[in-house]
Amino acid sequence: MKALEWLGDSLRILDQTKLPVTIVYRDASSYEEVADAIEKMQVRGAPAIGAAAAYGYALGAMKYEGIRAGLQDYMTEVKERLAKTRPTAVNLFWALCRMEDRLRELYEVEDLNEIQKALITEAENIAEDDRKVNHLIGEQGNAIVPEEANILTHCNAGALATVEFGTALGVIRSAHREGKKIHVYADETRPFLQGARLTTFELMKDKIPVTLIADNMAGFLMQQDKIDLVIVGADRIAANGDTANKIGTYSVAVLAHAHGIPFYVAAPTSTVDLKVPTGQEIPIEERNPMEMREVFGVPTAPAEVPVYNPAFDVTPAKYITGIITEKGIITPPYSVNLLKMMVRS
Amino acid sequence: MKALEWLGDSLRILDQTKLPVTIVYRDASSYEEVADAIEKMQVRGAPAIGAAAAYGYALGAMKYEGIRAGLQDYMTEVKERLAKTRPTAVNLFWALCRMEDRLRELYEVEDLNEIQKALITEAENIAEDDRKVNHLIGEQGNAIVPEEANILTHCNAGALATVEFGTALGVIRSAHREGKKIHVYADETRPFLQGARLTTFELMKDKIPVTLIADNMAGFLMQQDKIDLVIVGADRIAANGDTANKIGTYSVAVLAHAHGIPFYVAAPTSTVDLKVPTGQEIPIEERNPMEMREVFGVPTAPAEVPVYNPAFDVTPAKYITGIITEKGIITPPYSVNLLKMMVRS
Repeated sequence: MKALEWLGDSLRILDQTKLPVTIVYRDASSYEEVADAIEKMQVRGAPAIGAAAAYGYALGAMKYEGIRAGLQDYMTEVKERLAKTRPTAVNLFWALCRMEDRLRELYEVEDLNEIQKALITEAENIAEDDRKVNHLIGEQGNAIVPEEANILTHCNAGALATVEFGTALGVIRSAHREGKKIHVYADETRPFLQGARLTTFELMKDKIPVTLIADNMAGFLMQQDKIDLVIVGADRIAANGDTANKIGTYSVAVLAHAHGIPFYVAAPTSTVDLKVPTGQEIPIEERNPMEMREVFGVPTAPAEVPVYNPAFDVTPAKYITGIITEKGIITPPYSVNLLKMMVRS
Repeated sequence: MKALEWLGDSLRILDQTKLPVTIVYRDASSYEEVADAIEKMQVRGAPAIGAAAAYGYALGAMKYEGIRAGLQDYMTEVKERLAKTRPTAVNLFWALCRMEDRLRELYEVEDLNEIQKALITEAENIAEDDRKVNHLIGEQGNAIVPEEANILTHCNAGALATVEFGTALGVIRSAHREGKKIHVYADETRPFLQGARLTTFELMKDKIPVTLIADNMAGFLMQQDKIDLVIVGADRIAANGDTANKIGTYSVAVLAHAHGIPFYVAAPTSTVDLKVPTGQEIPIEERNPMEMREVFGVPTAPAEVPVYNPAFDVTPAKYITGIITEKGIITPPYSVNLLKMMVRS
């Protein structure tokens, strides 16, 4: 089961808002449809959003019916539409910039068909790179997983959040494949329930032992020495190591710190945004209040209750034991070591 | 709208599992029905459970059809049935012991009718005491609320958790009545959603400004300096001040501590259990895994996912700034000051 599949003239998206009960695919055949699917979180997770946006960009070019001279302006519109879907995960902008760079390289090419093919190839390269990168993150991360471990993860940084394998869950999958005795506690992750709906679903399919908890149980588990290690994904990592990730990650990090539990972030280097000096400059998306008032359309609160619904928070670098990337595990001081890692490419 | 109302021959219970969408009452006319309502959390909240159990005990005596000589044994059965409904909140046992003490005082009385009346009166006294105590907690607690404050509360320690007015929400109500500019952040409180369903509902009815957040957002709010004060209720307070309360309270306390935010517990002295030296000896109820797999019958996780569902956790005394009781605000050292307060009665 893949989050994304390229069908040659459309992008098949597994609708993650319906999982795990209903398995529905949406075939997006235009960039607008891809943008809509990203906004609705039918496809979510920083790396998966990046790959989806790349395919969306290619779809934009495929559906272009104007003359060559107008393509550049049109593709700027396509990029802007896709870019405004979600503000926090940087992989979206990274993938769109990579697509735009490719288009720029094709400046001299007159044949629209050739340009379209080249952009599809670039999107497929982005997806293929993500596959490889996730497996490498898994291999790298395996080093920090003990032979036996109870691992807490928040949200879903798994195969469903990426093109394949996953980041945080990639590390867990690798350790499990190595024969380590891994048991995962999955935070439910309100309000979107990515932990309850997606992480448990993925891990159960892979027969990796998992126990579902509510977000507010993580501290109690730590107090009882039931957590050895925390691994989460990331939506954007600032130059100083501050990390934006799903709302609630910060609370988990503070709790892990208070209990002396190692807290790791697993993410591709495409998640690192050196243009952002600290977490304070990372924009935090606020989502529809209805996500907090209903679960699958069933009211869980008064209809008119005021709601605060930030989709992400920022964990300061000081709470992060290490950042697991495809190039290796980065440790503090992050300002120095992130830069070194990014330059070495 | 009251959690409980004595109708003369039955106890009217507001079914809190259906709130806020549906307002349904259940008239319990036997002790078994009261026990069932407590187990199903149709009535919940430590003080409300205590009062409900007292009425249940009285109902047991009212329905007794045997001879006087058999009453004592029968009432022991009634007490045991009511006592085994929920293990953590001590008010349940406290109220049942008070009822049993009253029955013991009636040892010489032969007339069953007289005994029944006396037990009903005792249950009504317990309820009336709770009313008074909550208003006193509100008055006492007002002292620690600034003129303007953003207050975080977890779960529901309001009118619905008590006979009237509430403990944590009693303090908030008092401060609001005094004209203080209070704004409340209500944690959703998974899995039972007492914050989302009950606290917001109560506060909106009283026109006290409230904003609903997910449990995992509290840390992010504190990081942004959006919380001035935390007030929660309690299910049992050990002799050293360790406090059992709704699952997630411990996480909130650690977060408040990490951010230098005062953390108060508001509870009647009937919640203090001097027989329990520390929080480690407080039994923690684990509830049905289905609470974590569904919301109002709608699946939110794979049907067979393993679940850990503790209903309470224990906050160590070191994280508690003060305990607001009807007799005054207790501050550390709790081992000394709780004892002093309990003796002075």
